[in-house]
Amino acid sequence: TPSLEFEVTRRRVGRGVLDMWWYLEDQLRDLRGSLDAFPNHVNQITTIIENGAEHARVTRHDLAHLSGADGLSVWREREAADLSALVQARLHALQHPSDCSTARKLTCMLNRNCGYGCQIHHAVYCFIMAYGSKRTLILKSQEWRYNPAGWKDVFKPLSSTCTDPSGGWIVHWPGNNNTQVLDLPIIGSLAQRPAFLPPAIPKDLRRRNTRLHGNPSAWWIGQFLKYMLKPQPKLQQVLDSMSDQMNFHGPIVGVHVRRTDQAAFHPIEEYMRYVDEYFDDLSLTSPNVKRRVYVASDDPSVIKDTRSKYPNYEVLGDPDIAKSAALTTRYSDSALKGIIADIHFLSLTDYLVCTFSSQVCRIAYEVMQTMHPDASSAFHSLDDIYYYGGQSSHNQRARFDHVPRSGSNEMALTKGDIIGIAGNHWNGYSKGVNKRTRQSALYPSYKAEDVVVTADCPTYEEVRLNSKSDSIPDIASHKRDVLSNSLERENKVT
Amino acid sequence: TPSLEFEVTRRRVGRGVLDMWWYLEDQLRDLRGSLDAFPNHVNQITTIIENGAEHARVTRHDLAHLSGADGLSVWREREAADLSALVQARLHALQHPSDCSTARKLTCMLNRNCGYGCQIHHAVYCFIMAYGSKRTLILKSQEWRYNPAGWKDVFKPLSSTCTDPSGGWIVHWPGNNNTQVLDLPIIGSLAQRPAFLPPAIPKDLRRRNTRLHGNPSAWWIGQFLKYMLKPQPKLQQVLDSMSDQMNFHGPIVGVHVRRTDQAAFHPIEEYMRYVDEYFDDLSLTSPNVKRRVYVASDDPSVIKDTRSKYPNYEVLGDPDIAKSAALTTRYSDSALKGIIADIHFLSLTDYLVCTFSSQVCRIAYEVMQTMHPDASSAFHSLDDIYYYGGQSSHNQRARFDHVPRSGSNEMALTKGDIIGIAGNHWNGYSKGVNKRTRQSALYPSYKAEDVVVTADCPTYEEVRLNSKSDSIPDIASHKRDVLSNSLERENKVT
Ligand SMILES: Nc1nc2c(ncn2[C@@H]2O[C@H](COP(=O)(O)OP(=O)(O)O)[C@@H](O)[C@H]2O)c(=O)[nH]1
Ligand SMILES: Nc1nc2c(ncn2[C@@H]2O[C@H](COP(=O)(O)OP(=O)(O)O)[C@@H](O)[C@H]2O)c(=O)[nH]1
Repeated sequence: TPSLEFEVTRRRVGRGVLDMWWYLEDQLRDLRGSLDAFPNHVNQITTIIENGAEHARVTRHDLAHLSGADGLSVWREREAADLSALVQARLHALQHPSDCSTARKLTCMLNRNCGYGCQIHHAVYCFIMAYGSKRTLILKSQEWRYNPAGWKDVFKPLSSTCTDPSGGWIVHWPGNNNTQVLDLPIIGSLAQRPAFLPPAIPKDLRRRNTRLHGNPSAWWIGQFLKYMLKPQPKLQQVLDSMSDQMNFHGPIVGVHVRRTDQAAFHPIEEYMRYVDEYFDDLSLTSPNVKRRVYVASDDPSVIKDTRSKYPNYEVLGDPDIAKSAALTTRYSDSALKGIIADIHFLSLTDYLVCTFSSQVCRIAYEVMQTMHPDASSAFHSLDDIYYYGGQSSHNQRARFDHVPRSGSNEMALTKGDIIGIAGNHWNGYSKGVNKRTRQSALYPSYKAEDVVVTADCPTYEEVRLNSKSDSIPDIASHKRDVLSNSLERENKVT
Repeated sequence: TPSLEFEVTRRRVGRGVLDMWWYLEDQLRDLRGSLDAFPNHVNQITTIIENGAEHARVTRHDLAHLSGADGLSVWREREAADLSALVQARLHALQHPSDCSTARKLTCMLNRNCGYGCQIHHAVYCFIMAYGSKRTLILKSQEWRYNPAGWKDVFKPLSSTCTDPSGGWIVHWPGNNNTQVLDLPIIGSLAQRPAFLPPAIPKDLRRRNTRLHGNPSAWWIGQFLKYMLKPQPKLQQVLDSMSDQMNFHGPIVGVHVRRTDQAAFHPIEEYMRYVDEYFDDLSLTSPNVKRRVYVASDDPSVIKDTRSKYPNYEVLGDPDIAKSAALTTRYSDSALKGIIADIHFLSLTDYLVCTFSSQVCRIAYEVMQTMHPDASSAFHSLDDIYYYGGQSSHNQRARFDHVPRSGSNEMALTKGDIIGIAGNHWNGYSKGVNKRTRQSALYPSYKAEDVVVTADCPTYEEVRLNSKSDSIPDIASHKRDVLSNSLERENKVT
């Protein structure tokens, strides 16, 4: 069992190696751009970039090897399975009170005037509120714009014994402890925001969660999605037959290209640059690996575009699904199946390239975390860093002093400074506000790291895992089950 | 206990991070040099170099932290002490046969027509021959050019019971197994070179030695020096009083500047660049650390030069010793004390900057290995890589393919290729001969690594450590003992 310190340090080295190369590559490209009148210099810089990239690749490879050596990967698989089993058992207990008619409840309306990702995240927020206040979540899904037949038409209900919202007067949050039924507004309108909202994680899980995972908050959100998004047999059949038809299997990178109603346009080349890098890394040990992407988009031309521009790739993805995601047809039953399928398959890839400004990709990333012990760095976002819509402040803490050189507009840092992070430019620099100096500026990403926020939550002491640790299926087999034959498996189990 | 694989991988990452930055820094300096007509570009590149160096520093810091986490440094201290105790016990047994008059012996003449370092290395070679053939080494030191009174005037004899070379006819190596006394020529004239000559290490120590140490061959040589170089009380007094007078203590970097009869001249600035880097690394965690160097040279002006050019440094070292090292006075008793003292203090520093072409620095490096669990990378050589004079071939093995870009004169590599390494340019490239293709060219250092050569040797099964592992003093206390109060300690013990 590695210590928290060991795991944290190992991840620091990994991030350090990545960040350093991002910085150098970006600077070298910039320099090359400004020297384009001098072909000799341009050639020399191109050589440096190519050699540097290859070298960084080998170091990443060795680091990955180190993270699995000495039984560390076995430990990690086991710990991920155990920790997830504990959280799932707690959620199950919360959703199955001994007497639904007297149980304390939290009601939450699924339908919101926004997309699927936004609505699912809304439901997750409600579920977190339920966990933190130890109330059974009653998800009200009538009049769901994606499917009038409601949640249970596609996903299993959140409880097999308690889905009835009734129980005296409905009072709006925060009410008080004795109110039986409380109703929740959307996160943006919440009065008296509790400390356990994202990015917080429960205090009692802190040590294990931060040791296991490089993004504890995303891991925690992922656990709610794991509980919630259990397909009904009908939907499962659809997913299984799609999987069969595509012959979906790894290694595969997921690309999500968000277009239509979202502003910034990114050409497919911007995404594929990072897909190429992923496979370049792989080909260090598997020189003949088949390059494969799953492309999801709300713009059907993207899939065709990828196929024609990247003939060396096997491009999975369904232009018809993308077509159904057009604004005019988006809120339909078949479009719902499409977005569910896209998120499903994106979450089953080995690496995601997308814009984290889109909730579609953030959900895929969150669900992906339930498929691996720690896939926190298995992504490249073209814009935002990972966040949860409506979250409380996301801070970093300076690990070292930073003295900007004269004339630069970088942020001055004193070790220990708290910085409200606004974004990462993925070129060695992040942007944020220094809470001590109030300066808003760029700072070198490697000199700061996330503050992990914890909050007191009920600790569910009464929930004990009744199965022995080694009877809990590991995370790898969970992923296999999700990917295929899940109906078969269920028929056997239930 | 970490596995061999874990330790090897950890060192690979460390070397990868170092090598990558050497490559990039060298290329950027080169680029800057060719752009010196463009101040904007020069400034930009200078900024990149400075930022990159700072970033690389943090990653090295995190890696060092990782190598000590989870009790790994405790394990490493213990294992180093145990392994060294085993080898010392074997050497002791070899040098104390039950009956000297009938013991099988190897005789070796200390005096050679060369400097102190060369002679000591000659004696080490004889000792290795003795170890490999399980013969007691009889070191003949009469007429030693450094001191007519011989070895025992400064160092303890190699045996307290068996220093008599007699025993029938003296036959020249290789003789045969039953010949009682064999006499050795110098390594360069040796017929029938046995497989156990450097850089080989004994097969039965391979696993522990390669797991513990990044340069198993230098560690192995160091063990012979640890056994051999035990000062007599008179010499110990000289060393102790010098240490007191200088107030010798860490953190301190050792600089050896070889001038006079050796060809290539390196100005002090070339050395101090790496000393600065060592302290820049340290100041990440100790911002106010006092910068301290021990300077040894055969050119007395070097010490004065360092003092005047680097007023921010505390410069230890004795110009009178350097003066005595002039060619006219080199082979005198007082010059002997000087070179012994210089090697002694160099080996007690935390980091060495020197030219490995000089045996003086190589001996200091080898002895340094007995003061730390693994100080294999605690050096910067301005010229050669580490080697043992007269050693058998030093090979590397390609870890990955290398396809030189067209127009470059780099070496093509196929994974597994054996390369006879000739040198490291310390800029990301090494030079060597590919044994498969016979191409002699540069190749990227990170794509190859040392082949560890092992040889069958007697395994000294009869030697058992009679002290329990935890009664063996650890390496850190060995270093303390060597540094000071060693006489006091001895008076107590004996
Ligand atoms: N099938 C499919 N639908 C998409 C895709 N991208 C966007 N959409 C549709 O557009 C909606 C976007 O809203 P939302 O999920 O809140 O995500 P956001 O607006 O990107 O943050 C989705 O819910 C889908 O209905 C895609 O890649 N595939
Ligand atoms: N005291 C002292 N003597 C030195 C130093 N460098 C060289 N010498 C003298 O020069 C000799 C060089 O011969 P050797 O030890 O074989 O080393 P090499 O010639 O540098 O490989 C040493 O043995 C000393 O006598 C130094 O830094 N200090």
